[in-house]
Amino acid sequence: MEKPLKLLHASLNSRVIVELRGGVEYQGVLDGYDVPHMNLVLKNADELVHNTKKAKHEKLIVRGDNIIYISP
Amino acid sequence: MEKPLKLLHASLNSRVIVELRGGVEYQGVLDGYDVPHMNLVLKNADELVHNTKKAKHEKLIVRGDNIIYISP
Amino acid sequence: MEKPLKLLHASLNSRVIVELRGGVEYQGVLDGYDVPHMNLVLKNADELVHNTKKAKHEKLIVRGDNIIYISP
Amino acid sequence: MEKPLKLLHASLNSRVIVELRGGVEYQGVLDGYDVPHMNLVLKNADELVHNTKKAKHEKLIVRGDNIIYISP
Amino acid sequence: MEKPLKLLHASLNSRVIVELRGGVEYQGVLDGYDVPHMNLVLKNADELVHNTKKAKHEKLIVRGDNIIYISP
Amino acid sequence: MEKPLKLLHASLNSRVIVELRGGVEYQGVLDGYDVPHMNLVLKNADELVHNTKKAKHEKLIVRGDNIIYISP
Amino acid sequence: MEKPLKLLHASLNSRVIVELRGGVEYQGVLDGYDVPHMNLVLKNADELVHNTKKAKHEKLIVRGDNIIYISP
Repeated sequence: MEKPLKLLHASLNSRVIVELRGGVEYQGVLDGYDVPHMNLVLKNADELVHNTKKAKHEKLIVRGDNIIYISP
Repeated sequence: MEKPLKLLHASLNSRVIVELRGGVEYQGVLDGYDVPHMNLVLKNADELVHNTKKAKHEKLIVRGDNIIYISP
Repeated sequence: MEKPLKLLHASLNSRVIVELRGGVEYQGVLDGYDVPHMNLVLKNADELVHNTKKAKHEKLIVRGDNIIYISP
Repeated sequence: MEKPLKLLHASLNSRVIVELRGGVEYQGVLDGYDVPHMNLVLKNADELVHNTKKAKHEKLIVRGDNIIYISP
Repeated sequence: MEKPLKLLHASLNSRVIVELRGGVEYQGVLDGYDVPHMNLVLKNADELVHNTKKAKHEKLIVRGDNIIYISP
Repeated sequence: MEKPLKLLHASLNSRVIVELRGGVEYQGVLDGYDVPHMNLVLKNADELVHNTKKAKHEKLIVRGDNIIYISP
Repeated sequence: MEKPLKLLHASLNSRVIVELRGGVEYQGVLDGYDVPHMNLVLKNADELVHNTKKAKHEKLIVRGDNIIYISP
């Protein structure tokens, strides 16, 4: 068994896909997170809305509230 | 009587269907979960939107917040 | 006076109707629940969307968050 | 001053109207409640959607989350 | 400075307007409230939907969750 | 660094704009607030819906839940 | 690893983009925040709705609840 936070921790410094409600997606390098909110820090993050690239962010604090899934 | 978390635990390493709000569904092998949030880790997970396969993920952390049901 | 959790407990092993937000309904045998979330385990459960049968599940963990009512 | 829970308690065994989000209403005899969630047990309850009677339930556990008001 | 709960308390036995999400409004005499939920008891309450009077209630328990504002 | 509650406190007795979800806005003199909910008391408050003035309230208790921002 | 609150703290006195639900965005100098709500104080903040500038605020208290991301 692999607990969610253990997998999240193992994904540090790797590129992850973060899917939010409303068809919004971020793709970036996981640079940090907090517990228990699962707020994330992403580096070099692309912002996609309905699969269309909208913006690029050097760093991003994403609130955990709106996250549907994180794909390492 | 079988409590929800006991059934969830017994479903580890088996394929489960996870239904989310908004017609989104994941089908994958349950690799982990946490308490009390019921965040899940799925392996080899198919992502379906309104019954159409959209993506495949080797691993997935699904937040418990958006889950409607888990079908072992 | 009959408290909600006492009635829920008395409904174990009986067929119940579970109504969710969005016109979704489950009909199955109540096999378990937890406190205070009111997550449920249903057996032999039919899934209905706007009164049309969509699927059958041998077992189902339904999160309490989305439940409107439980009818024993 | 009459506190909400005191009025709720005084309404036990009387017919109440329970209004939910989304135009859903239950009319039944209040048989129980819990604190602090305000989950309710109703007996002989009519279910109305936009003022049209949809169903009758011998007993009903209504989650407090979705309640807008209770009219004793 | 007048704290919200102090003003609410000072409004007991006076007529108040209670605005809810979705264009629903109650106008009645404030008969009670609880802390910290801000559930209210209203007496002789008119229910208005988009400014049209829909119903009259002798007593009403209004859940605090859905309240936008209370105007004493 | 100026913490949100410190700025809120410094705004007492001044006119503030309070923006809510759904295009609703209140403009009034901040007369009080509570912690941690950030419920507010406004005096001489204009209520605007999509920038159109709808009503005037001598006093108003605004629940913090629905607030997007407060502009001192 | 860089935790979200550490990055937020390091962003004090710098210009940040704050994205909210519903296509609303604020661009301003981060002047403060609180924990754990992540309410923010912004200075010289532009308010954009679907990328169109709607208003300018000298100071702004933004509730953390509605924030999707903060881009330092």
